[in-house]
Amino acid sequence: MIPNDPIEHLITLLSRLPGLGRRSARRAVLRMLMDPAERMLPLADALTAAAAAVRPCETCGNLDAHSPCAICSDRHRDRKLVCVVEGVADLWALERAHAHRGTYHVLGGLLSALGGTGPDDLSVTPLLRRIEAEHIEEVILALPATVDGATTAHYLTDRLKPTGTTVTRLAQGVPIGGALDVLDDGTLAAAFKARRPL
Amino acid sequence: MIPNDPIEHLITLLSRLPGLGRRSARRAVLRMLMDPAERMLPLADALTAAAAAVRPCETCGNLDAHSPCAICSDRHRDRKLVCVVEGVADLWALERAHAHRGTYHVLGGLLSALGGTGPDDLSVTPLLRRIEAEHIEEVILALPATVDGATTAHYLTDRLKPTGTTVTRLAQGVPIGGALDVLDDGTLAAAFKARRPL
Ligand SMILES: [Zn+2]
Ligand SMILES: [Zn+2]
Repeated sequence: MIPNDPIEHLITLLSRLPGLGRRSARRAVLRMLMDPAERMLPLADALTAAAAAVRPCETCGNLDAHSPCAICSDRHRDRKLVCVVEGVADLWALERAHAHRGTYHVLGGLLSALGGTGPDDLSVTPLLRRIEAEHIEEVILALPATVDGATTAHYLTDRLKPTGTTVTRLAQGVPIGGALDVLDDGTLAAAFKARRPL
Repeated sequence: MIPNDPIEHLITLLSRLPGLGRRSARRAVLRMLMDPAERMLPLADALTAAAAAVRPCETCGNLDAHSPCAICSDRHRDRKLVCVVEGVADLWALERAHAHRGTYHVLGGLLSALGGTGPDDLSVTPLLRRIEAEHIEEVILALPATVDGATTAHYLTDRLKPTGTTVTRLAQGVPIGGALDVLDDGTLAAAFKARRPL
C-alpha cells in the first residue's frame, strides 16, 4: 500500500470527475503535492467558495453566484427572446458561441419514456409563467437533435401554442467545417431534405 | 460573461492540472455543481487534508502522510535492497507492479546538462549515507532509458563504487525514451526481474 490514506482518498475522489481516469488523477495529485500551498489549498478554497456561492438562478435555472443570474440581470439582453436548453452545459456553450442575445430557460432534462422523465420533472410550468409575465415574443428551442430532444420539442410546441408566442428551433444540418462522411446518416438525410436555394 | 467569478476561477484552477483541459474542467465543475455537498466539499476536504498531512519521507523521499513512510516503516521489506528512482511517480509505478520487495531512494531528478541539473540538486549524498548506515547490499537503478537517465546511472555507478555495494539497473525492455510510470505493470515487473549488474 503505497499511496497512503489521504493520497489514495484524494486520487479516488478526483478520478470520479468526468474526463479524469485513475491514471490522470494520480498524475494530478503528484503534481499538486510538489507544491501543496500553491496548488492544493487554492483549489480547496475555490471548491468551498463555489459550493457555498453557486446556486440555480430562480428565473432561468442557470448556475451562478447570484440569483437572478448575470444573464437575467443584464439590461442589455433582449428579454423578449428566450432560448430553452436542456441543461446548463448547453447554455454555457451557446454563450461561448455568442449565439444568443436574449435570455435562457433551463429545462433540467428532456422528456424520456425510457428514462422515466415526464413533464413534471422539467421546468415547464415556470416557463409558461415567464412567457405570460414577461410578455415573451419568441421561444427558441435549442434542444439536441435526438429522439428525446424531438419529443420534448413537440411537447413544448403544444404547450406553448395557447400563449401565442412564436416557437422556433435551431436549424439542423451539416456542422460548419464538418466533413460529410463522418456524419451519421440521420443528420445527413435531414440536412439533405432541408436543403436551401443558394 | 457567463460562468461568474467563483465558477470561472474553479475552472481555471482545475484546467491547470495535468490531463485536464479547459473543456473537461468545465464538465467536471458542472457535474460537481449538480451536487456540491456530495462532490465539491469532500474534494475540498481531501485536498486540505492531503496538503496538511503529506510530506516527503526523511529517509527515502517518498510522499506519504508519515515520515518515515509506509514503505520505510514496513518490517517485511528487505532493507538491504534499495531501488533508486527519479521521482515519486516512478516509485508508485513500481509499487503498483509489485516489482520490488526492498526500499526506495528518490533522487528528485536526473543529471541534465541542458536542464542545468547537477549532482548537488539530487539526493546523492543522502543515498551514500544510507548505504553506509544501513549496510545496503544492492542498489538497483530504476532510471529512465534516456540520455539523462544513462548519464545519471553512470554518475551514480562511479560514486557508489567505493562503497562496495552491488549496483544493478533495470533490464533493457524499458522502451528508449519511455517514462517508467506509463509502462504497463507486466513490462515493468519483467524488466525489474531481469536487472543486470553494471
Ligand atoms: Zn437567470
Ligand atoms: Zn520512505
